[in-house]
Amino acid sequence: MRRTAVLGAKRAAAAAPLLRAQLRGTAGHAMATIPPPQGLLRPLAVPQRLLLGPGPSNVPPRILAAGGRQLLGHMHPEMLQVMDEIKAGIQYAFQTRNRLTLAVSGTGHCAMEAALLNLLERGDTVLVAVNGIWGQRAADIAGRLGAEVRELLKPPGEYFSLRDIQEGLARHKPSVLFITHGESSTGVLQPLQGLGELCHRHGCLLLVDAVASLGGAPILMDQQEIDVLYSGSQKVLSAPPGSAPISFSERAREKMLRRKTKPPSFYLDMGWLANYWGCDDKPRMYHHTAPINSFLSLREGLAMLAELGLERSWERHRANCTLLCQGLRELGLELFVKEEAARLPTITTVRVPEGYAWQEITAFLMNEHGLEIAGGLGPSVGKVLRIGLMGYNSTKDNVDRVLGALRDALQRCRRSRL
Amino acid sequence: MRRTAVLGAKRAAAAAPLLRAQLRGTAGHAMATIPPPQGLLRPLAVPQRLLLGPGPSNVPPRILAAGGRQLLGHMHPEMLQVMDEIKAGIQYAFQTRNRLTLAVSGTGHCAMEAALLNLLERGDTVLVAVNGIWGQRAADIAGRLGAEVRELLKPPGEYFSLRDIQEGLARHKPSVLFITHGESSTGVLQPLQGLGELCHRHGCLLLVDAVASLGGAPILMDQQEIDVLYSGSQKVLSAPPGSAPISFSERAREKMLRRKTKPPSFYLDMGWLANYWGCDDKPRMYHHTAPINSFLSLREGLAMLAELGLERSWERHRANCTLLCQGLRELGLELFVKEEAARLPTITTVRVPEGYAWQEITAFLMNEHGLEIAGGLGPSVGKVLRIGLMGYNSTKDNVDRVLGALRDALQRCRRSRL
Repeated sequence: MRRTAVLGAKRAAAAAPLLRAQLRGTAGHAMATIPPPQGLLRPLAVPQRLLLGPGPSNVPPRILAAGGRQLLGHMHPEMLQVMDEIKAGIQYAFQTRNRLTLAVSGTGHCAMEAALLNLLERGDTVLVAVNGIWGQRAADIAGRLGAEVRELLKPPGEYFSLRDIQEGLARHKPSVLFITHGESSTGVLQPLQGLGELCHRHGCLLLVDAVASLGGAPILMDQQEIDVLYSGSQKVLSAPPGSAPISFSERAREKMLRRKTKPPSFYLDMGWLANYWGCDDKPRMYHHTAPINSFLSLREGLAMLAELGLERSWERHRANCTLLCQGLRELGLELFVKEEAARLPTITTVRVPEGYAWQEITAFLMNEHGLEIAGGLGPSVGKVLRIGLMGYNSTKDNVDRVLGALRDALQRCRRSRL
Repeated sequence: MRRTAVLGAKRAAAAAPLLRAQLRGTAGHAMATIPPPQGLLRPLAVPQRLLLGPGPSNVPPRILAAGGRQLLGHMHPEMLQVMDEIKAGIQYAFQTRNRLTLAVSGTGHCAMEAALLNLLERGDTVLVAVNGIWGQRAADIAGRLGAEVRELLKPPGEYFSLRDIQEGLARHKPSVLFITHGESSTGVLQPLQGLGELCHRHGCLLLVDAVASLGGAPILMDQQEIDVLYSGSQKVLSAPPGSAPISFSERAREKMLRRKTKPPSFYLDMGWLANYWGCDDKPRMYHHTAPINSFLSLREGLAMLAELGLERSWERHRANCTLLCQGLRELGLELFVKEEAARLPTITTVRVPEGYAWQEITAFLMNEHGLEIAGGLGPSVGKVLRIGLMGYNSTKDNVDRVLGALRDALQRCRRSRL
């Protein structure tokens, strides 16, 4: 319900002298009374670190250089071409021919919201597979959107079988299933084979979070009948955080076209974004000023993946993860995910060893070795250490460095009271 | 309403052989069938341009260098310090002591959404002052959020008087007034003096969009009793797009604390962001991976503003805008905003001269001079040309360059059929 009031020109003219005085008041001799902060007057200091946590990872010089280029306008032809190349790069990385493929102007989290808020409407039932933090987050967001949220729970470190999912679908009859391919809080790789087909037999769309797994483990959007897939720029793609690939199948597009209400965001409205990214047949219209430099970096990250090739990237992550796991066991550490094939090749979780405080280990690695690994997150807090080997950082040399540093930590961080 | 289903360990064990086969299937020898795109295998090309449109503007080398630094983790102490410096820099730029001051992980548009979706709830009445595209956008977003939207309309090129606003407040009794300080689509600078006090007498919060004006014209958040103020990184601050300053008064914070429902976004939930930015007294928790490099750039843009000083920045923009306006009149062009004091110092609008097609002029400047100016936007499309002189680009040399290029265009673009 809207009501509008057009103000008469006559009335505006009557107020003119008052306004002129007012305008002089603001534009004339305004004074700042809050002084410039001292911290900003000192030079920026950025130490060099090896980032082997769950992300962000180190960015290769070539991608930093791309992101450090001078700006173009967001609608300049060269920028539209960069966006077309990003779109093609995402189609390759996702292995999809979906027209509605683009990068969101925000981080991976923003893409999660874009997926949910475009797909779901008040009253829709969504089934969320929760075996770590990402399912929890998706359930939170879906609840905010007014969806009927049903959760399928698994303990941290476990994954969902087709039978688990089938029972959930039969019981809750959702229109959307949310599941996480790479559970970065627990180190679990969720098998996707057969999941899309199963969902479609139950009249349900399949929404997959691949923020931590894309490029590090096989994901074949079209073959696996995934309806919505999103990822982030700062894990295997090795670009800075700030842009996020996303793609929608025809089924997902049709559900969005049937919406009764507009999505509760203009910034992330897929109808507008589709036009902005040239995914419809209409002339492109101004939507928002894109994060130009983030797109230049993302383009370069996708280019490096295209040059390497997906299969080699999967294989490299698998091989370095295997080396890391061997080394961790040799240090006497216990891997958190038991089944080898269910281990996420990009982020490895080990149990916090008995007699150690996890915070001491991570602090020691940071302070003594300039190297980041992380503790747990959400349901895995206090239980695990997380080591990321992603994209540019997935090398044998980094495996050796993190193992060496951990050996040092295990010798020097043992709690004195034990 | 939520229902959950915990899956029994026994049932999971029964499915194990099937799963192992499935896992081997995906992780073993998956094949990509969609080849790498050719466009991505060619090197990135970014031409050098002088960006004198309504944004983004050129980024100074120092800010590009800051954004091209190697990454840190988003929770590393050095990064938290950068965030503290950003916060202090925004407090300076906004002239506010508000604790709830931070940068949103998205563009200026994203900050507009963050302001509206945290402040408004279903059923709230919002009065939107519409005299260009930004009011239209705010009304669209507020409508998506289920707010009761009332519009106060003015023709493009005009601004709102205190009397206009007073009548609107008395008539519609809104809880929030949205108004644009720098209307970049029309080149109008909205006077703010007295507006906050007026709103507060009517029990209404004042929400101001200062994306195009911050740093280019006086804005004094606390003195002017503005409740929510936001801007962007890519105009006067001369940083790349991708982060956006925002601040909330105590009054605004109290309204948010009284919400009955969660905001329909987790990414932009000000409760979480306040914690992430150290604006509450609780230990910081992981919320999302921030766009690190965008924050490094924004910090540098704020540092340059702090070094120059707000008053000098305002004066520089005023002086260069005045020079530009003189030169435009000498070329025989007609300024779109009649009243000098109501002209936005950052973006100047002139009527499209009789006998010319605006697209020919902008294309000529781009092709022959490597220089961007823009046509109109929304209600000003086809009516005006827009010339931006913002931050790093607000120089006498750029005034001369754009006037020289326009003189050339006026000589060579006259429509042949006239």
